[in-house]
Formats: sequence, structure tokens, C-alpha cells
Amino acid sequence: MDLSSFSSIFLLFLFAFTLAEVGSVPTYFPGIYQSSLKKNGKTVKPKIPFRSHYFPQVLDHFTFQPKSYKIFYQKYLINSQYWHKGAPIFVYTGNEGDIDWFADNTGFMLDIAPKFHALLVFIEHRFYGESMPFGKHSYRSAKTLGYLNSQQALADYAVLIRSLKHNLSSEASPVVVFGGSYGGMLAAWFRLKYPHIAIGALASSAPILQFDDITPWSSFYDAVSQDYKDVSLNCYEVIKGSWAELNSISASDEEGLGELSRDFRACKKVSTIYSVRDWLWEAFVYTAMVNYPTEANFMMPLPAYPVEKMCKIIDGFSPGATKLSRAFAAASLYYNYSQTEKCFKLEDETDAHGLHGWNWQACTEMVMPMVVSNESMFPPYSFSYKEYVDDCVKQYGVMPRPHWITTEFGGTRIEQVLKRFGGNIIFSNGLQDPWSRGSVLKNISSSIVALVTEKGAHHADLRSATRKDPDWLVDQRKQEVEIIQKWISEYNLYMKQG
Amino acid sequence: MDLSSFSSIFLLFLFAFTLAEVGSVPTYFPGIYQSSLKKNGKTVKPKIPFRSHYFPQVLDHFTFQPKSYKIFYQKYLINSQYWHKGAPIFVYTGNEGDIDWFADNTGFMLDIAPKFHALLVFIEHRFYGESMPFGKHSYRSAKTLGYLNSQQALADYAVLIRSLKHNLSSEASPVVVFGGSYGGMLAAWFRLKYPHIAIGALASSAPILQFDDITPWSSFYDAVSQDYKDVSLNCYEVIKGSWAELNSISASDEEGLGELSRDFRACKKVSTIYSVRDWLWEAFVYTAMVNYPTEANFMMPLPAYPVEKMCKIIDGFSPGATKLSRAFAAASLYYNYSQTEKCFKLEDETDAHGLHGWNWQACTEMVMPMVVSNESMFPPYSFSYKEYVDDCVKQYGVMPRPHWITTEFGGTRIEQVLKRFGGNIIFSNGLQDPWSRGSVLKNISSSIVALVTEKGAHHADLRSATRKDPDWLVDQRKQEVEIIQKWISEYNLYMKQG
Repeated sequence: MDLSSFSSIFLLFLFAFTLAEVGSVPTYFPGIYQSSLKKNGKTVKPKIPFRSHYFPQVLDHFTFQPKSYKIFYQKYLINSQYWHKGAPIFVYTGNEGDIDWFADNTGFMLDIAPKFHALLVFIEHRFYGESMPFGKHSYRSAKTLGYLNSQQALADYAVLIRSLKHNLSSEASPVVVFGGSYGGMLAAWFRLKYPHIAIGALASSAPILQFDDITPWSSFYDAVSQDYKDVSLNCYEVIKGSWAELNSISASDEEGLGELSRDFRACKKVSTIYSVRDWLWEAFVYTAMVNYPTEANFMMPLPAYPVEKMCKIIDGFSPGATKLSRAFAAASLYYNYSQTEKCFKLEDETDAHGLHGWNWQACTEMVMPMVVSNESMFPPYSFSYKEYVDDCVKQYGVMPRPHWITTEFGGTRIEQVLKRFGGNIIFSNGLQDPWSRGSVLKNISSSIVALVTEKGAHHADLRSATRKDPDWLVDQRKQEVEIIQKWISEYNLYMKQG
Repeated sequence: MDLSSFSSIFLLFLFAFTLAEVGSVPTYFPGIYQSSLKKNGKTVKPKIPFRSHYFPQVLDHFTFQPKSYKIFYQKYLINSQYWHKGAPIFVYTGNEGDIDWFADNTGFMLDIAPKFHALLVFIEHRFYGESMPFGKHSYRSAKTLGYLNSQQALADYAVLIRSLKHNLSSEASPVVVFGGSYGGMLAAWFRLKYPHIAIGALASSAPILQFDDITPWSSFYDAVSQDYKDVSLNCYEVIKGSWAELNSISASDEEGLGELSRDFRACKKVSTIYSVRDWLWEAFVYTAMVNYPTEANFMMPLPAYPVEKMCKIIDGFSPGATKLSRAFAAASLYYNYSQTEKCFKLEDETDAHGLHGWNWQACTEMVMPMVVSNESMFPPYSFSYKEYVDDCVKQYGVMPRPHWITTEFGGTRIEQVLKRFGGNIIFSNGLQDPWSRGSVLKNISSSIVALVTEKGAHHADLRSATRKDPDWLVDQRKQEVEIIQKWISEYNLYMKQG
């Protein structure tokens, strides 16, 4: 058993985890999303039909110290080509990353805008992308990062939307919020906390129940494993068995590490087997998450149903091949489907800046405990809250508030509360996505609806429609459009009646 | 016209206003509530059947800087004599003052506790009473006061209630929140923002619509005036005419001020006629607010229907008497019903500490614009937001955020939002109370109910029942009990069904 501890956390809208060597202090591991973001979101800037704007936003909505009034410029994107005054406003409640990148991967909103004559607004989350309250120093310490959290983000959205409507002289326009993953959580929470601003929310792949002990802590990795098992039991077993082969190389075995590096086509010799473990781990987890039914380039360019493709690679090996070599070949699909990589940067930990964003949130309010059960294909691991805390204190000098999210937004009984209180939220999920296990998978009421697809993945519904989309995805989106249409009709009727 | 500007604000659960001499910079005027609090709440400590507790509360729920984690001790009162595990918990969401004093004036909860086997909890609002985050230095500047606001207070209540339920091993107990005036606003907002914690709210005399331009700015003083007019047109006209008589004394007329001081039985010669004006003004406003149907001692000891009594005094004068002398005699009822005052401290501005609490809130988020119309019995006045801002900047170095409350809690369309979204709130009001004009006076839905009494005053329903209570008050309370009972039954049924 190699994992002494890790804490699963969202990384950007995905996840990261702390992996550590036996007995060592865990360090936060940079998820691949970082490099992915740089590649897709920064260096290759997506061409999106939006204009960038910058809103003078207040630093702290919930205190009134002189410094709370500091203004920073929050980026937001606008597409008004289909809109006319009074028509709906669709707002994407940005999550932990560059807003251009989310806009580029949320084509659904653009697809449906003409039908609704909707104004599209994508608001960047504070402390991500260009929306840095303290410029380059935003991540310097807990003193600056302290202002990075979900409630401040929701208040940002409320203030910005109100101001925008005022400036457009379109105060009566119904606002619907959209979001995926953490952005979906924000969309659902926004509807709960600001029902006077948003008439409804489409919360896609939003694990709002992944806190405290609401969802079983093992469910995430069990779900990842199930994705592979469903395709092929052998595939699952090969991956499950590969870790032991990796572990047979001891830390001091320089020759073994050299061989491992060659086998894994590492650009630079790896310094520890844990880099390899994490590299594999991430490939399997992220591929399960983005197990889309069509070719897509969200995290990485990938073929349709990439888990199937990975398992095909694994199952296609001759019986004599090692499990580790098969796991490597499968992971290569994830890292190099485009066939452009000559070698792999297994220990690439660049751009810690963006990573820190979610790490910080995980170390303060976004505490989502996870364990790896014996049934999963990953090495078993049990969650130690003490180690989690020690880590956070070491890294940022602050303690997590593990029960704060459920105090602020509801916990165990949130579904019952929603049933009796709320309305107009769609929780959309695809069961391929391990995050779906922490989301709402059953209808709560006539107006809090769960749209679940068996073959869907991480907010697949928010992606642009393609000609190759399977019927179930077309159907899911159609249902979403109909429900949103109903919200707007009801709203318009209500406004007419006074 | 003497009033160059003033800004009406809540003072404790009442109001204060800035009154200024012509051309001078307005200063915040200390409302009588201060001395009232000292007399009733501090020096004569009320004997209430509660035990005091102190909860380690976090300073800032919405940021995660190292200093946000500072703990202060929040006072709360408990009465558990009727309670058993699993039974309801009734929480008073404390407003801007000493919690003992609110407990002492909210006997309704104690009256109904046996029927529900309810645990009673009165939570003190941060920065009031003993709940001072920075001890004696809490009011030092905007740096410390910055943490005093309604959202932090609501989060305090959420955290405390959750912890309390956990410690009592009674997580399933339904929680109902109660509050009067600003405390009633907090109760209603708590139900809106924390529906997973409170199953319902009794918001008594809660002017949640007194912000922005939702309620006509003149309505408050028009309502005060109407109270007097309804009793006697002559009474109203005498008061309305008294200001001109007062104004006939010029600022430099030392003899006139001496005579005025004698006429008003001032303990010390007044330095300006504006002290007299404010002294009268307060008496008329507060008496309208607490125009209770029975003898009561909330602000001051007063007879039943004190407005009627005041007008009786005014109308009983011989025709030759000046209007000012009649106004004085009426106001004396307010200040000296108990006949214990040998003279009046017209310029008593002691205990500015407690006053600053609400002043601060009014200067940051609680911006409730008010004007005095020609129809009112007070000297006309129009609201200048610029002067309001200048004042706040001068006093605290910070700007108000006039649209924040309506952004955070809903504004113009809040009733429509509540109808479509929320549930389980009673807005109780008495029309004698000028604050009722900024509250919810019509049923919004089957579960957002307005209980309005024509003869009721400022949260009359929350007071202890007395044998002399009129039927309409008995009825109002009975309806409240029935509605709360319904909420609890529904909740229990819901919990049983899973």
C-alpha cells in the first residue's frame, strides 16, 4: 500500500488529489488540468463568439471595512447577437478557470440562444483567469486568497447581473443560470440563494451532495472503476493489478526507475514511482469523467467513448504483456490521442498558480472527503481528516471549515428542503461521470428535476451539439430546453398578471 | 423650514434620524432608545427565565483570511423547562440590542412554549449587548465594525443552531425563527436563505420592503401622522402647528431659549431649539410605534393606547394655550408617564456606544430613505442621498451600499419571488406602527401569510399575553400558533414519510 494519504478535491471543475509517499507529508499534486488549461485556454486561445468586458466588482460583499470596498475587474463575456430588450438572459456562473475556456466548452447555450433570443453572459469566477483581485499577488497568501470562496462568487454574480440588467434597461428580463461541475453547484446555489435574480438553474454534473457524509466517501472511485468494469472485467483487473507491478520497483532502484522511464516514454527520467502512479491515476479518472459519446477536446483531445477505447487497448495485448505496460498503453490514449507527443512529461508541475485556486478552496470550504475502497481498481486509501487539516495549515496557514458548505447551502436534508421550498432547478447528470454520485439523481419535485443519462459524462449536455450525438443526448438537451421554456413562459405569464 | 437634512434609520429596533441646523453638517441624533436601554436593559436587569450561554463564534464566515478565524463569544439565552429531545426549537433572531431586553419583551414565545414543548433560544446579534467581537474596541472604527452586518448575523445563527442541535443530539427538531422589527427582517431572511435550518419564520413588524424605492419614502411619517389624525384632527393640527412656534425662537435669542427650557422643564438650559424639536419628534414617533392596546413598558412605561391619551391631553387644553405647550404636555406623557421625572434631559446624549451599532448598519447596508411630506404633521423634508453619504463617510470613512440589501435579499419583486419560491413565513403587523408600511401586508401565498391588525403596534403580538388584551390581539396570536402548529405537523409528517 503506497498511498499514505490523499484528499480528493476539485481541480478546476474537475479534481486533484494529494498523493504522498509512505510516511511522507502529502503534497498537493498538480492535476493535468493545468497543462490542459494552458494548452487549450491560454496558448491556443479559443475562438469564441463573445466580447470580453470587465466589471468593477467589490472585493468583499460581506464586510464593510475600508479595504472591503476595493474594486477589482471581473471579466465577463457577452454575446448579444440574438437578443432584444426584454428577452431572457442566460448566465453561465463561471467556475474555477479561465472563462473563455468554459464558454468554448458550453456550446449548448450558444446553440439554444436563437430559440430564446437570449443574451449570453459568461461570468468569470473571482481569482481565476483574468479576474484577479490583487493582480499577480492574488495567490500570495491567505490574506489575499481569503476572498476566494463560493459565497463571494455568488454575490459577484448577483451584483453584476443586477447592474447589467439596469444598464441594458431590461430589468424584467428573466435570468436563467447555467453551470457545469463546480459551476453547476454555483448555478444551483444561486437559484437557492438568489431566487429574486434567477428564475431557474441548469446545474450540470453538480455534486452538491459530495460534502460531509451525505454521499458515501467511496462512491467516486467506485464509479470510476465501474466505468471500466462495465466495458471489460479484464480491463478493470489489469488496471487494478498494475499498481502492484509499479510498487515492485523500490525507491532506491535507480535502474528500475530508468527502465520505468523508458517504458513510459518519459521526456526526463522520473525521480519516483509515484509520478508514474499519479500520471496513470489521472488518465483513468479524467477519461471516465469525460467519457463522451463523441470525439471531444475538453481535457485532452479524445475519441468517442474513450474508456471503451482504453479497454480495447488493454484487452488487445497478448497474454504475456505486463499489466503495467498495458496500463501505460491505455493512458497514452489519454495523453496522446492526437499523436503529437514525442515523449511524456510525467513530472510536469508547471503553472501552480491556477492549481492553487482550487486547492485553496478545498482547504477552506470545499472539503469533499473521499476514500478508495477495496472494490475499486485503485489502491485502497482511507481519508484522514487530521492529515487533510495538517496539509492545509502547512500550505496556507488556515484550517478547513468542513461543515460550512452544508451549513450555508444545506446538507443531509437538502433534497427534502428543496422539495418543500425551492423550484426550477435541473440537475443533469451522466452516470459515466463519477461526480454524478454526489449529485441529485432523482426528481425532487415537479420543478426540481433530475435528468440522468446512463451513458452521459461530465456535463456532456452543455457541449455543442454535433451530428454524431446519440439520441439520448439529443433528448436530454431537448428536455432541458422544454423545461427552461416552461420557466420562462410561467415567468412571463406571472409578470403579465402583475 | 429648519431641517436641512436628516436620514431616517433604525435605531435599535426603532429608528434614529439625523437632524441638523440650517446650513450645518448633519450629525447623528441619539434616539431615546439609548437611555431606555440603559434603564430597562442594563441598570434594571430584567428578570427573565433564561440561562445565559456563550457560543464560540467565528468572526468572518465569508472570508478565509487568518484573522477571519478569530473567535468571539456570542451570547444566547436558553429556556429548556418545557422541552424534550425531538421537540421544536424556537429561536429568536436577535436584533440591534441587548438580548435580555428582547427576551423580556417577547413573552409570546414563553407563553406558547409549553404547548409545543419548545426549547427557547434567544441569540444576541453580533456587536450588540455582550456579543462584542473586539471587546471594548468593537466600535473603534470601520476596521472592527466592518464585521457588523446582517449576513454575518444570519450565518452566526445558522452555525449556532446547527451546533446546538448537534450538542443536544436533536438534529431532527424543527426550528422556527421569531423576530420583531429588524429581528423580524432577520427571521424572514433567515427562512429565505437557510430553509434547511428553519422550517418557518414569524416576522413581526419587519419592514423588509423599506429599501430602495419599493415603499414610498413618505409612508413612514404619513403613517405616524395618520395615527394622530385618526384620533383627533385637532391633535394632528396642533402638533403640525407646533413646529412653527418653536421656530419663532431664533438661535441667538438666549432669553427665548431660557423660557423654552423652563416651559419644557429642562434639567439644563437647552443650547438650541433643535434639541427640543428632536425631543418632541421622538416622543410622537415612538408613541405611534408602541401604541399598544394595554399598558406596557417597552420603550418607556406607557398607558394603553398612548396616542389617544396624548391627543386627549392636547384636545383638553383651553383654546388660549399655545400649540407648543400642548405638544410639550403630550410628549411629557411619553417621557414621564410614571411620574418619576422631576425634569427632562432634553440634550442627553449618553451611551453613544449602542447607538453607533445601528448607525453603522444604516451607514453601510441598511439604507432606508425617508422623506416628510406636506401631509404629515412633521416639518417637510426631502431625502438627499449625497448628504447621507457625506455623513457616513465623515463618521466612519466608508460609503453606504444602498442597493446591497435588495440585491442580497430581494427587492421590488420579492413578493412575487416569495409566492413562486418560498413558504412558511408569517408577516405580522399592526397598522398603528409606521414601520408596517414597509412590511408585507397581504397574503402572498397559502404559506406566506400576512396577519394584519388595524389597532396593533410595533410587534405587539410578540409581547406577553395579558388579561386586558383585546380580542383582535388574542386572535392574531391564536392564528400564529395555529400556523406554526401546521408547519410543525407538516414537517413531522414529512420526516416520518422519509
